[in-house]
Amino acid sequence: MKVYFAPQSRAVRTVWLLEEIGLPYEVEKFTLGQKEMRGPDYTSINPNGRVPTLIDGDVTITESTAIAQYLGAKHAPELIRGPEDANFAVYLQWLHYAEGMIMGPMGNHVVETVLLPPERRNPELAMRALKLMGRTLGALETQMDGRAFLAGDFTIADTITGHAVIMARRLKVDFSGLPNLSAYADRLEARPAFQAAEAV
Amino acid sequence: MKVYFAPQSRAVRTVWLLEEIGLPYEVEKFTLGQKEMRGPDYTSINPNGRVPTLIDGDVTITESTAIAQYLGAKHAPELIRGPEDANFAVYLQWLHYAEGMIMGPMGNHVVETVLLPPERRNPELAMRALKLMGRTLGALETQMDGRAFLAGDFTIADTITGHAVIMARRLKVDFSGLPNLSAYADRLEARPAFQAAEAV
Repeated sequence: MKVYFAPQSRAVRTVWLLEEIGLPYEVEKFTLGQKEMRGPDYTSINPNGRVPTLIDGDVTITESTAIAQYLGAKHAPELIRGPEDANFAVYLQWLHYAEGMIMGPMGNHVVETVLLPPERRNPELAMRALKLMGRTLGALETQMDGRAFLAGDFTIADTITGHAVIMARRLKVDFSGLPNLSAYADRLEARPAFQAAEAV
Repeated sequence: MKVYFAPQSRAVRTVWLLEEIGLPYEVEKFTLGQKEMRGPDYTSINPNGRVPTLIDGDVTITESTAIAQYLGAKHAPELIRGPEDANFAVYLQWLHYAEGMIMGPMGNHVVETVLLPPERRNPELAMRALKLMGRTLGALETQMDGRAFLAGDFTIADTITGHAVIMARRLKVDFSGLPNLSAYADRLEARPAFQAAEAV
């Protein structure tokens, strides 16, 4: 398998999961914003020039949550939950929470603080995005009360929405009222598989 | 089953799917932006005050793509794809494409054209969001070349990412260079189940 990757991006989720499963993989490494991500070599693989992209034999797949469901179903059934599981709905809801709720404002924050040239950045929009991101974490804080992971034991949901929580904390969302999420982020960051993904 | 719903929202996806499956359901109807969506009665069900929320017996689940996967796995296996299916990766990628790629800019557009009071709206940001939305449709236009649906036959992916395509066209994204997506949106809008969801 091969992963098109950039540090500090959603591609960390994919490598983290591959490390959790213990599957061998190669990495093709970019830096976020790097020109080559929009060049013809890579856009012939992913027309949006985004990471991650996973190549698995003759399968090419993008979208980090899709990749997580693909890898779980193909290689790690113990990390996914099916309709017979009591946690099925909880698992699905929190698996999708990152992209549905958290990543919109996070993307806006990154646009206004990193991707736009300094003279075009708008600090008011960056602040609005940061506050909105914090607000989306409230429901997660409640969910994590008394829980170690999002849906019982560790699942692919933790590599997706857990990663969004870690990123939100690094972007300086106010975590002072989020003790459960602080402990959760610490717990995830301590996992050897996460640390291996961070070291790529 | 009960669906918390608002017209012109992601909740249309849920009612559309329930209609495709032919399951009976009740609707609790809001208008987007209505104060009651943020009131204590509803935030005790969905702390973010967003729609859709699905109640199925003792299960409460939010996030439209999660709900689609839940309903598919529980009630309509013919509308989902599993790891043994040749279209599995394609199905997953396009199922997740709406929330991962299209809905971020669409949300920004709605904020700048509907949700903010007129004096706080920024036409430049609205235009930026519209252009970005259009750009995310390019990969979908290529995918739909020669295809009737996203992943072979009609699946839940069409009720999610197909719905995002329909909404993008209604928001006046430039579809002049998107003949495959224009035909696809027409095809979806003609489905009786979609029309029933629009009539709620």
